[in-house]
Amino acid sequence: MTSTLVLLRHGESTWNAENLFTGWVDVPLSEKGVAEAKRGGELLRESGVLPDVLHTSLLRRAISTANIALDGADRHWIPVRRDWRLNERHYGALQGKNKKQTLEAYGEDQFMLWRRSYDTPPPEIELGSEFSQDADPRYADLGADLPRTECLKDVVARLLPYWESAIVPDLQAGRTVLVAAHGNSLRALVKHLDGISDGDIAGLNIPTGIPLRYDLDADLKPTNPGGTYLDPEAAATAAAAVANQGR
Amino acid sequence: MTSTLVLLRHGESTWNAENLFTGWVDVPLSEKGVAEAKRGGELLRESGVLPDVLHTSLLRRAISTANIALDGADRHWIPVRRDWRLNERHYGALQGKNKKQTLEAYGEDQFMLWRRSYDTPPPEIELGSEFSQDADPRYADLGADLPRTECLKDVVARLLPYWESAIVPDLQAGRTVLVAAHGNSLRALVKHLDGISDGDIAGLNIPTGIPLRYDLDADLKPTNPGGTYLDPEAAATAAAAVANQGR
Repeated sequence: MTSTLVLLRHGESTWNAENLFTGWVDVPLSEKGVAEAKRGGELLRESGVLPDVLHTSLLRRAISTANIALDGADRHWIPVRRDWRLNERHYGALQGKNKKQTLEAYGEDQFMLWRRSYDTPPPEIELGSEFSQDADPRYADLGADLPRTECLKDVVARLLPYWESAIVPDLQAGRTVLVAAHGNSLRALVKHLDGISDGDIAGLNIPTGIPLRYDLDADLKPTNPGGTYLDPEAAATAAAAVANQGR
Repeated sequence: MTSTLVLLRHGESTWNAENLFTGWVDVPLSEKGVAEAKRGGELLRESGVLPDVLHTSLLRRAISTANIALDGADRHWIPVRRDWRLNERHYGALQGKNKKQTLEAYGEDQFMLWRRSYDTPPPEIELGSEFSQDADPRYADLGADLPRTECLKDVVARLLPYWESAIVPDLQAGRTVLVAAHGNSLRALVKHLDGISDGDIAGLNIPTGIPLRYDLDADLKPTNPGGTYLDPEAAATAAAAVANQGR
């Protein structure tokens, strides 16, 4: 039994465009992001990779990307599941801050530590502050699980239970599964799938809007390690650009 | 224990605008329909009627309406269930035909019988024909349940099992439930909720894009029979216009 997993990072958001740390702040897609999501849908349709079920985060930019892409692929009607465990990494007190200004204020070393170290989270966000989620009804049931900041290690820890309990059963049922999520929740998933080390994951950037297909064997190991982008050329160009964010 | 049910008929589709019988043909919203869906979301937000869970048909015009309205009400993140039992009435061999031309070809009596009688379906659609759904993957599991035509009585019969098994449990859990569906699947549901007779249901028209709120008691009987439109004035104007379709 083999199965197909398709990862889709949301298109550009308004805050990506403004170079702000976003995390759990629920910003919409930019016009460019909408166009990227449409292109993602075209790639699904053209390649015949047709999802049977969708999993998304609780954030608008991933939900809208999935809605637009699936509509374009004529798969708007498939079952949907949403979970906070697919959310972007919580950026703590950096949420809402400008990346360039943060780089200048704290210096290259601290900036890169927060952005790319595996186990050093930014400072915690203040409860009740403008970009905190403690009063958001969608997280009302989380209790102590509600993060105030996260490093990538934290994302892996909260993502894997959802992978095991919700996504794996769909794959084992032979479904083609689309996961529409975020830069860091998808890096966490790819780290698990490809067995990437804590150190090496820092160098991995997933481009926006380009579906990444994994063919999985019965043990859910990729038969195409690293996955296959449905538009490999665009993916290579975009990955290089992501690495330079904040400069 | 009381609960809240919100019914939302999709905004105008491109085929509504062209005056064609649509049924199960999966056409998109028109520009006007997108605007109606946005207005529906504003009404939800302004009135504080905030759905906890969404149920839709498998048809794009209902799915898009719900996506747009929920995004506007900041409820895009709620759980979603989709089912063919919420689909529009299958219009049989009339699917894809112009309403005015059908009226002229068959005469007022036959036309009104197909449109508004409770138990007389149009002629069956031919399998494999342009507007048939027998090759559509979203209905692949239906087998003998796949309709080739339906009257409103048929819609009631296939809708109620979903009402009982999927929507009622959500209501009984105290959730505010949004059902985004179609003129006839919503008429079937309202007939059941309000105990409307087979004869009287012909006179009921549900306007597009205006959320209709039902407050239900512990026995799921409306404490506001007939429901409450979130914009009553617009609903009255629109219902009158729907009654004149095809003229």
